[in-house]
Amino acid sequence: MTLSAGATLRELRERKPLVHQITNYVVMNETANATLAFGALPVMAHAPQEVEEMAGIASALVLNIGTLSEHWVDAMLLAGAAASGRGIPVVLDPVGAGATAYRTRTAQRILDVVGVTVLRGNAGEVATLVGAEAEVRGVESIGAGLGPAELAQTAARQLGLVASVTGPVDMVSDGERVFAVANGHELLATVTGTGCISTALTGCFLAAKPDDPLAAAAEALAALGVAAEDAAAGAAGPGTFHVRLYDALYALDPDTLDGRARISER
Amino acid sequence: MTLSAGATLRELRERKPLVHQITNYVVMNETANATLAFGALPVMAHAPQEVEEMAGIASALVLNIGTLSEHWVDAMLLAGAAASGRGIPVVLDPVGAGATAYRTRTAQRILDVVGVTVLRGNAGEVATLVGAEAEVRGVESIGAGLGPAELAQTAARQLGLVASVTGPVDMVSDGERVFAVANGHELLATVTGTGCISTALTGCFLAAKPDDPLAAAAEALAALGVAAEDAAAGAAGPGTFHVRLYDALYALDPDTLDGRARISER
Amino acid sequence: MTLSAGATLRELRERKPLVHQITNYVVMNETANATLAFGALPVMAHAPQEVEEMAGIASALVLNIGTLSEHWVDAMLLAGAAASGRGIPVVLDPVGAGATAYRTRTAQRILDVVGVTVLRGNAGEVATLVGAEAEVRGVESIGAGLGPAELAQTAARQLGLVASVTGPVDMVSDGERVFAVANGHELLATVTGTGCISTALTGCFLAAKPDDPLAAAAEALAALGVAAEDAAAGAAGPGTFHVRLYDALYALDPDTLDGRARISER
Repeated sequence: MTLSAGATLRELRERKPLVHQITNYVVMNETANATLAFGALPVMAHAPQEVEEMAGIASALVLNIGTLSEHWVDAMLLAGAAASGRGIPVVLDPVGAGATAYRTRTAQRILDVVGVTVLRGNAGEVATLVGAEAEVRGVESIGAGLGPAELAQTAARQLGLVASVTGPVDMVSDGERVFAVANGHELLATVTGTGCISTALTGCFLAAKPDDPLAAAAEALAALGVAAEDAAAGAAGPGTFHVRLYDALYALDPDTLDGRARISER
Repeated sequence: MTLSAGATLRELRERKPLVHQITNYVVMNETANATLAFGALPVMAHAPQEVEEMAGIASALVLNIGTLSEHWVDAMLLAGAAASGRGIPVVLDPVGAGATAYRTRTAQRILDVVGVTVLRGNAGEVATLVGAEAEVRGVESIGAGLGPAELAQTAARQLGLVASVTGPVDMVSDGERVFAVANGHELLATVTGTGCISTALTGCFLAAKPDDPLAAAAEALAALGVAAEDAAAGAAGPGTFHVRLYDALYALDPDTLDGRARISER
Repeated sequence: MTLSAGATLRELRERKPLVHQITNYVVMNETANATLAFGALPVMAHAPQEVEEMAGIASALVLNIGTLSEHWVDAMLLAGAAASGRGIPVVLDPVGAGATAYRTRTAQRILDVVGVTVLRGNAGEVATLVGAEAEVRGVESIGAGLGPAELAQTAARQLGLVASVTGPVDMVSDGERVFAVANGHELLATVTGTGCISTALTGCFLAAKPDDPLAAAAEALAALGVAAEDAAAGAAGPGTFHVRLYDALYALDPDTLDGRARISER
């Protein structure tokens, strides 16, 4: 395993992979723009008539339950099964798991039916899905009983995937190894959908580096974190930070990214 | 009754209440970001399987019919009844009431079924709902037969709630008293969803000051208006104004807000 | 036929027409804001209970299949028929036609049922709809067998409408004449929904100049292109470009627009 966010970003921009996203209404524009700025091609499609076909031509599938309803869950299951069947990597964002029973149940159902490659959530959401003690208010994680590194490792083992638990320091694990990612900026928490953006960019890096989801997931968080650091410099608040984040993702330099990525093994 | 937008803002930021919003597709990202920047936690959820549970853990519920359809109306009724039953304040934005019969009928149905605490709309929408003469084009209010102060008072009395009628000068009434709020900036009218943002921020202040909806509604409009004034200073047009509005909401200083709020009793 | 983007813009701002848009979840906020900044009134409505009524009071109807599903397609057909029946111009954006069979079929169905005035798409989408060789990945057009001018003319003749094919140089044709529009900036391709914005602004100009859809469609692309040139000057990347685009649309000067519009007959 080689960790190089720079090399993966270079690969992404050369291939420009199609990343199919079935995500929530609140952040669709934002994750599409982040995907484009990063260097991939986003496509949003959720009709049962087309999700399997669209997932089949994509290089990664992003599932996000932020504003779920029955038709959308059905679409996620259909697209997820199509992607899994073709070996296309899938990233799941279980937004708000733990806040309502319906969200928890839906995330579990997707995990049961779809071969999820990476689970990207906050501590409360991931803790909920492994049965650990957690407190979730709405879509915000307030706390989890386990420490984040332990939580990521436990979730990865129990669910058989790469767990990517974001927080002040992100923890990414395949059940054996655990990587901490210490990039980012506190302004990320002041803009809605930055968690969803991290999920979308994880999908992008899975498309560029499908054989190493552990590395791809950690590198994606580092890349977003570095962009957030750039965006925060000179931002007057959440609004300008948000806008500058797209500029920073677009301007990310593969040559200097590895030197700035703060990824360390636990 | 004490009017202090600064004290309510301070309270909001200390409590960080959860504000459940069932709103329209056009502005979801915008109202979520405004809510976060103001100091509360937004959550968007509309599935019948979870709206009652989500409304039950929230401190305020925002209903907005801007892009309504039958499933969404059902969700609003379910969530609204759950909130009312638990004494959680509800704010309704009857977007486009008067423009089509379906919107008028739906707003009336919500008012019938849900214990709406504050009705926040423009003059045409509110006039439509009290049977007064009004002209509404699409979602823009062109005119209303009654003057705005009279309209707010009439609506409050007739519907048994706090009516918050926004316009060049906003009018807020509980049927007895009428407050005029003279903050704001004309650039607000050049960005879609600023009315919906005023509704969301009204929900935030209702969460922080649930026992005094008249004051909370007036203070929320003053706070948004002051932020708009700050955002407009140096904005090159609607795009930069829009972005700076989130910066300004985030930077609002409780200590100086009361001195800048232009709230006066009629 | 007189080509004057400046005169049409002046007309638009005087009339402030209502432009009804049934569009995709990703760009609703963006097309509404672009419409407002341009000088018209956007309204988004998709419920079967109201689309005919709303389309009937609008001056133009915009249909966009970017995130289609069966209920939305039904709404587009209802609204489209109502608009056609009243002589209200309709612009169709066949987002992703060619990428999945469902999108291709839906675009064809709308073209069959609705009297579409202007078809605004990229080369791959339009080529798909006239049976020409095309490659579409997701919602991006990769290539088309015909040259863009020939493609626009062929589509216009075959489908009996004005075809507006956007790309590095846009081509607009009514089947007889072909106009090339050479305004714009490469940053447009780095922001999602700028194609959808061009469709929405085409709807605005159709509302202002309903008797000459060929001129209106070409002028709308020139106006957006000039605004993009202004927005790009000084933009640090896709994020700031996007924000400045609304400023630039709002600031477009009818008096200088014709001198900057690069429209030429082929």
